[in-house]
Amino acid sequence: MGRILELARSRRSIRSYSCDPVPLEDVAYIVDVARHAPSGANKQPWRFLVIRDPLVKKLIRGKCEEVERRFHERVDPEFREWLRSRGISWRKQFLTDAPILILVFARRGEPYWIESTWISIGYLILAAEELGYSTLTYTPSEVDWSNKILQVPEEYALQAIIPIGKPAERREAREQDRRLSLHEVCYLDSWGKGLEI
Amino acid sequence: MGRILELARSRRSIRSYSCDPVPLEDVAYIVDVARHAPSGANKQPWRFLVIRDPLVKKLIRGKCEEVERRFHERVDPEFREWLRSRGISWRKQFLTDAPILILVFARRGEPYWIESTWISIGYLILAAEELGYSTLTYTPSEVDWSNKILQVPEEYALQAIIPIGKPAERREAREQDRRLSLHEVCYLDSWGKGLEI
Repeated sequence: MGRILELARSRRSIRSYSCDPVPLEDVAYIVDVARHAPSGANKQPWRFLVIRDPLVKKLIRGKCEEVERRFHERVDPEFREWLRSRGISWRKQFLTDAPILILVFARRGEPYWIESTWISIGYLILAAEELGYSTLTYTPSEVDWSNKILQVPEEYALQAIIPIGKPAERREAREQDRRLSLHEVCYLDSWGKGLEI
Repeated sequence: MGRILELARSRRSIRSYSCDPVPLEDVAYIVDVARHAPSGANKQPWRFLVIRDPLVKKLIRGKCEEVERRFHERVDPEFREWLRSRGISWRKQFLTDAPILILVFARRGEPYWIESTWISIGYLILAAEELGYSTLTYTPSEVDWSNKILQVPEEYALQAIIPIGKPAERREAREQDRRLSLHEVCYLDSWGKGLEI
């Protein structure tokens, strides 16, 4: 099995982090990979705001929990039950537990600014996995607060907050992590026709 | 240097492909990596339509060149000059030259359906690079034609067409491929403050 498939298969979204520190050298490696992603017209619309300062993490967590609390109150009962079944609440402890957060911003209006930035997020999480770190691509239900609170220029929009660290939870695959099979998502020459190799 | 950084750094967007065939086993590996990407609520909104049939490739090229021709007529002179300087015209020969095209579709309305699908595209292009293939994340300027022409259900929207093959052009980095430095795109704890490692 190739190395990338190995990394992609073993990766799990992790919501509990240990306090083991993540050296800045490792963070630099991870972002170095992400910044090499291709982008529309090579405009590189991404910016990576690495948060290590516990006070800033606390500030971010407070704001996220405020918007998530509102969001959880708003959702319909069925989705609320689904969230509960996954152990997802408005509480976001990983935002203060994880030694490092990477906030990924995208510059509005560049060609394919969202698409390009999410390619780089794909690169980023594989690079973290390669170094043995866990990640989560957390997308707060509201993001506009981040520009004001973190003094980020208005033309940049927060796309995701990615905690980086060693996992504090077991990593076996759960049913909810299951992926559709190759035959269910991949067709050859005609929609619905399996690859048959 | 880690393997992923090596792949990310060496990858170039390639517009000329040789006719060397790409075994379906390799295509399966590449899509296998892509389908393991994380997605909003693990909804896996992606579908991969692999095109090997030369007639279907010709059909796709015809339609893409039709919409690109319209697009190129519409753009302002400055952008037209920029396109010319990159050697990008409305002609899309790679759509028939590359032995394989992977059309990536995303299911509208799933949580973070575009973002998730582009993470999987990030995975996909790194996996192709790992096997020694070149790629391009080509986004046609119009995409709705694809549902009708390729009989794809309306709820799926074409995100990108990715040719896969051996390059028929030299792969040295050009000035236009240059990336911003780590310090230009990555900050620590405060916007604009370099990582300083």
